Amino acid sequence: MALIVQKYGGSSVADADRIKKVARRIAWSRDRGDQVVVVVSAMGDTTNDLIEMAYRINKHPGDRELDVLLSTGEIVSSTLLAMALKALGYEAISLSGAQAGIRTDANYSGARIERVESKRVVRELNKGNIVIVAGFQGVTDDMDITTLGRGGSDTTAVALAASLDAEVCQICTDVDGVYTADPRLVPKARKLTEIGYEEMLELASYGARVLHPRAVELGELFNLPILVTSSFTQSSGTLIHGGVSMEVRNKVRSVAYDLDVAKITVVGVPDRPGIAVSILKPLAKAGISVDTIVQNASVDKITDLTFTVAKSQLAKAMRLVEPIAKSISARDCVSDSKLGKVSIIGTGMLNTPGYAVRMFSALSEKGINIQLITTSEIRITCIIDESRVEDAVGVLHETFQLEVAEEEREVSP
Amino acid sequence: MALIVQKYGGSSVADADRIKKVARRIAWSRDRGDQVVVVVSAMGDTTNDLIEMAYRINKHPGDRELDVLLSTGEIVSSTLLAMALKALGYEAISLSGAQAGIRTDANYSGARIERVESKRVVRELNKGNIVIVAGFQGVTDDMDITTLGRGGSDTTAVALAASLDAEVCQICTDVDGVYTADPRLVPKARKLTEIGYEEMLELASYGARVLHPRAVELGELFNLPILVTSSFTQSSGTLIHGGVSMEVRNKVRSVAYDLDVAKITVVGVPDRPGIAVSILKPLAKAGISVDTIVQNASVDKITDLTFTVAKSQLAKAMRLVEPIAKSISARDCVSDSKLGKVSIIGTGMLNTPGYAVRMFSALSEKGINIQLITTSEIRITCIIDESRVEDAVGVLHETFQLEVAEEEREVSP
Repeated sequence: MALIVQKYGGSSVADADRIKKVARRIAWSRDRGDQVVVVVSAMGDTTNDLIEMAYRINKHPGDRELDVLLSTGEIVSSTLLAMALKALGYEAISLSGAQAGIRTDANYSGARIERVESKRVVRELNKGNIVIVAGFQGVTDDMDITTLGRGGSDTTAVALAASLDAEVCQICTDVDGVYTADPRLVPKARKLTEIGYEEMLELASYGARVLHPRAVELGELFNLPILVTSSFTQSSGTLIHGGVSMEVRNKVRSVAYDLDVAKITVVGVPDRPGIAVSILKPLAKAGISVDTIVQNASVDKITDLTFTVAKSQLAKAMRLVEPIAKSISARDCVSDSKLGKVSIIGTGMLNTPGYAVRMFSALSEKGINIQLITTSEIRITCIIDESRVEDAVGVLHETFQLEVAEEEREVSP
Repeated sequence: MALIVQKYGGSSVADADRIKKVARRIAWSRDRGDQVVVVVSAMGDTTNDLIEMAYRINKHPGDRELDVLLSTGEIVSSTLLAMALKALGYEAISLSGAQAGIRTDANYSGARIERVESKRVVRELNKGNIVIVAGFQGVTDDMDITTLGRGGSDTTAVALAASLDAEVCQICTDVDGVYTADPRLVPKARKLTEIGYEEMLELASYGARVLHPRAVELGELFNLPILVTSSFTQSSGTLIHGGVSMEVRNKVRSVAYDLDVAKITVVGVPDRPGIAVSILKPLAKAGISVDTIVQNASVDKITDLTFTVAKSQLAKAMRLVEPIAKSISARDCVSDSKLGKVSIIGTGMLNTPGYAVRMFSALSEKGINIQLITTSEIRITCIIDESRVEDAVGVLHETFQLEVAEEEREVSP
């Protein structure tokens, strides 16, 4: 008898019929003899409706009150799911985040889990109950309700699974797994049976739509296997785990992209220590997240510093950077807001330089101009014109034969 | 600086606009320098909507899960009210029943308050907060959420007021006080400025519509003054308290009625000890509440036993009583489901027999036949035909000059 944790998102429990369907799926797991803990999000649009109601009453509703208000959404869905399981003849009990021992800091609307006191959950499991836990919420040591912010229910599920030493945390969602590229962009994209934590994190916005990076990081920290699978089909899903098998190492696993990229270049900067800091520190202070940073090789002690930010933050960033550029005697400061990012991802790829060459050639053959290149241990990223991102994802998927199962590919690179 | 507790019902907070209005009324109390604790019900039809959703999923949703589900209604309204007060520039905080220390037994859906641990409420008051408490709910020692059943929010308010030693508990509602008779039946009915706990309890169904008897009883137990007043007008309301002034003693205060009366008469019962018990005990066991009980004077050791029940319970009661009647050799067992009850109420009235005579004469002059009479320390009740109840209330209100302020009435009886 194993202990498994399953998480169902808001669209999986959007109405009474879906709640009944989810109950049948949980019952099926229970019938296999497993102990089951379920984490559930609020039904459909509940959270947005509650936020709207709050703002109708107060334009600055206050994080503490808003958190208490929003926490009711998951309480409603957890009780209804428990009722649905009982209607099928199963023993079930709903627990709020507080009752399930999800203890957080007091950082309302974006609280971090400090620890999980799972005594009550264990007691209910031992009584033979399926335990339904309201996701996205926790409680401070003062017994004040908090919410965990984006990716909250994913995080609740992985944290509970880790603290209960569960065999696996199943993320049941409206996609049936992680693909070699966003299936909306690449119809030939193939579902991966497994992927490493780091690779999953590198999938960026596409990956985050499947599973929030926070939950992936927590899974990695506790080396807890996470299965991404469909709520309603019997598909096998994708297992995210740490021990990626030998034979899939040194292979391109997937192609990721991001359309939310703007670039700022400070041109003609005197190349002396501390220049990058003087430009980037004010941005960090203003809460602007800088992604790729590239400093070109210095010629005659003059260099260019280029970095990317989210498009929505470009204007604010430029207002901060322009006076700094002037004060450090840079020649100019230019921006481009029509960019995108395309990456190939695979563990250990960097040790095999052939991949980068193949990537650049493939893009070049398609007439796609590369503006910036950055790499990590398991990723090679090119910043290109936003209008060519879709083409780029397609050609890279084809180049690296991602539609073909790994063991059947031609030897690569 | 006094401490007051205010309670607002569901119709007072039915939408965003009303919540803002209630917030202004609370702010007005705060401006007078009082510390304010507010107990709030769920918005409008929320509770019914939640119940409906539960039954769509499971026809026997289970009391524990249903209680957790329903408790979200008051949490939503309490947070929104706190936000509305903040929008007006006041410090406010919402607390769930659990956070406010409303500790109950584990009798789900009808829990009784065992104690109030008001430490947290006091702490928040001392910080300068207006404290908004979610009504109708509490928590067991196992930290399971309960609801208090009918009259729950009234009861939360009075219990909190008693434990905080508040000056008064204000029940803010959609009527502006307690009247000498139901104003829907008697347009001339006059609002009382004060009424005793016992008198309030004797108002039966009309009184219960204003304030649940459970809350009145709790107020009496702790000798806590309860002010029934309008949520939205500046009317002075009716104070329910223990120390009714000397000059209003020995006066008829109000006329009450009840249309939910059915009568069962066991005819020709051998008059020996234990007969009433043998008939009434099975009813009590079956959860049937027996109201008026009258046993006629015995002639030749044969008597009639008559009692009343709610109309909805008549059929069930008859099924139980008929075989018993047969077994104790009663001559017959008859019922009448078309009855009503009319009462005059006033402290100490029974010591002045003139009242009863005046009541019976007034009814007789109107051609209203009295079927049964019962009395209590402060009440005289006649069971009459249901079709004559409205007439009876009107003629009694007139006979005892209830539309006239007490000090201006002709000497009575």
